[in-house]
Amino acid sequence: MNLRSDQARNFVFELVAQDARTGARAGLLHTPHGTIETPFFMPVGTQATVKTLSQQDLEALGAQVLLANAYHLYLRPGAELVARAGGLHGFMGWKRPMLTDSGGFQVFSLSGLARIKEEGVYFQSHLDGSRHLFSPEKVMEIEHHLGADFIMAFDECTPYPCTEEYARNSMELTLRWARRGLERHTQLQQEQEVPQALFGIVQGSVFPPLRARCAAELAALDLPGYAVGGLGVGEPPALMREILASTLPQLPLHKPRYLMGVGLPHDLVAGVSAGVDMFDCVIPTRNARNATAFTRLGRVRLKNASLAEDPGPLDPECSCQTCAHYSRAYLRHLFQTKEILGLRLATYHNLHFYLELMRRMRRAIIEGDFARWQAEFLAAYQD
Amino acid sequence: MNLRSDQARNFVFELVAQDARTGARAGLLHTPHGTIETPFFMPVGTQATVKTLSQQDLEALGAQVLLANAYHLYLRPGAELVARAGGLHGFMGWKRPMLTDSGGFQVFSLSGLARIKEEGVYFQSHLDGSRHLFSPEKVMEIEHHLGADFIMAFDECTPYPCTEEYARNSMELTLRWARRGLERHTQLQQEQEVPQALFGIVQGSVFPPLRARCAAELAALDLPGYAVGGLGVGEPPALMREILASTLPQLPLHKPRYLMGVGLPHDLVAGVSAGVDMFDCVIPTRNARNATAFTRLGRVRLKNASLAEDPGPLDPECSCQTCAHYSRAYLRHLFQTKEILGLRLATYHNLHFYLELMRRMRRAIIEGDFARWQAEFLAAYQD
Repeated sequence: MNLRSDQARNFVFELVAQDARTGARAGLLHTPHGTIETPFFMPVGTQATVKTLSQQDLEALGAQVLLANAYHLYLRPGAELVARAGGLHGFMGWKRPMLTDSGGFQVFSLSGLARIKEEGVYFQSHLDGSRHLFSPEKVMEIEHHLGADFIMAFDECTPYPCTEEYARNSMELTLRWARRGLERHTQLQQEQEVPQALFGIVQGSVFPPLRARCAAELAALDLPGYAVGGLGVGEPPALMREILASTLPQLPLHKPRYLMGVGLPHDLVAGVSAGVDMFDCVIPTRNARNATAFTRLGRVRLKNASLAEDPGPLDPECSCQTCAHYSRAYLRHLFQTKEILGLRLATYHNLHFYLELMRRMRRAIIEGDFARWQAEFLAAYQD
Repeated sequence: MNLRSDQARNFVFELVAQDARTGARAGLLHTPHGTIETPFFMPVGTQATVKTLSQQDLEALGAQVLLANAYHLYLRPGAELVARAGGLHGFMGWKRPMLTDSGGFQVFSLSGLARIKEEGVYFQSHLDGSRHLFSPEKVMEIEHHLGADFIMAFDECTPYPCTEEYARNSMELTLRWARRGLERHTQLQQEQEVPQALFGIVQGSVFPPLRARCAAELAALDLPGYAVGGLGVGEPPALMREILASTLPQLPLHKPRYLMGVGLPHDLVAGVSAGVDMFDCVIPTRNARNATAFTRLGRVRLKNASLAEDPGPLDPECSCQTCAHYSRAYLRHLFQTKEILGLRLATYHNLHFYLELMRRMRRAIIEGDFARWQAEFLAAYQD
């Protein structure tokens, strides 16, 4: 095995197929922990665990990449502790690729009294009220300690709605922070063996000219990948799709594109159709714990009385372990009695649904059949 | 396959080996859902689920029998619903033997305002305050609906401490209820295809003459198995062992003996040494959820700060999936952050420890080496 040439291929993104009628594309993304088939969905493991599931479950589900959160892990157990345990891979016992979110969103949404300054964000821990500063440089240090394959720049996730002036200032701050983060990342890379890929995040709220400028400036940094942030934060779905459609063409064709924190199954389909390669979202896991399961016909409420004596599986066409072994009646009983196994079986099923959805989209793109597949999926899926 | 002769062997208990120096014994217990190797431990699945684990986990752990609770399942989802789903085996998707506890203990400990009368116990549901009567006959009907292989008679679990007079009256009530339960069970058996084994429960608190009388009266009923109840309810450990030592010889040699709701690892060893064949207890599962793991050297507190950077497995000599894949540091992190995976991984490990403990005892008995094994185990295990 030629390690040097393997290294050289790290984070290379190969386009395998592009759909003729939509923006959808299928590719291969090389990382130090293996090659990922795109488009793909990342289960969210905020605190270095995808809630209720084991790493063996996630391997069996075919999860290619897990996401963890720099904000949470910085507070507990501490990024340096994770580094000493061999990074997230060693700490969690996960051998496939990982991505860490920078925690920008969580600093604003979870912590107390966050104050945004040019140097970074001052905030108080949501756990013990202790005071901290996240600067773009500090976040790079944390993400290097955590050691994920993909690391996200520290950004301000612009709230919605906001004025165009607020959005412009926020986007420009995000750009300055991206440049500072890249500088620190480049220094840190020289000290470590395993490379990490820093992704930039396009902000600009719902204003296409701001999005376009942010995308162009980030593209000039020649980063290995780009995310679209600040969507799925309360804006109407049609507006999200419009912004996505106008923003993606501004990004380099041969770099992976990541739509952060989105969304429902039809959002994933719309995202792939627009040309997105990477997704993450808490919806399949959080909704599972709230007793909502996804099927190709739409959502099933697992506490619904109509399930009480239903001997069939959650989805008769599903091949997951939950559907192979357990009835709707039993799942409902587990939720009615607040039993942990219910959370776990529903989470397993929902992630299987999401991951299988991505695999089907990839197959349809490669077979040149994505537009037809999309129409069929949307006709069957009742939101 | 000769079904009739298989049927005839149901609930036959074959003694395979008896230890020369203790009361320990190893056997085979035949049931409609397969043959069980004794002595054995039953994981507790009160609400038709062993908290946090799937039935596939329990199969992989080598659990031979699961226990469920008639009181809880009568209230939710209802015994008749379970019957229509194919009994507990069909409802849960569990193919191996099961046992249902009658709910006597839970009626007293969980429900509001329980009133004991000759006809049975009037109580209010701990869920919605609704009023119910559990009579010995009613409980048989519930346990027949649930369809476990082993069903327990409805008894009064005599509280500790109590006067000898209270204990005598309580024991005599338990005896009258056992005869009434047996009568109803015999009727119900004639209407159903798959046989169930009704076990009697010896009460009598800490008074050996009462225990002896209860055992003798139950033995006269020629039931397929006998339980010792009302121990491990607060009496000193030495007293529990004394009562066990004086009670077990009163029970038929060729029937399985079940020590209910006990206990810690050294209690299981003492029980086997005294001649017990069957155990159940919430300790391995409940303590796991309270961040306590069992190892052959004693208990490990999973929140202990000393584990924070410990890269080793919970128990280096353990072959379970938790120890194969996860470090003490990661387990501590999961408990510190209140993540569900921690509850699950600790439960899996603790049940592996308990089930493996039973398998080792059986092997030692068969190899004629139990007394030496017991001494070694107790020397290593620090309570």
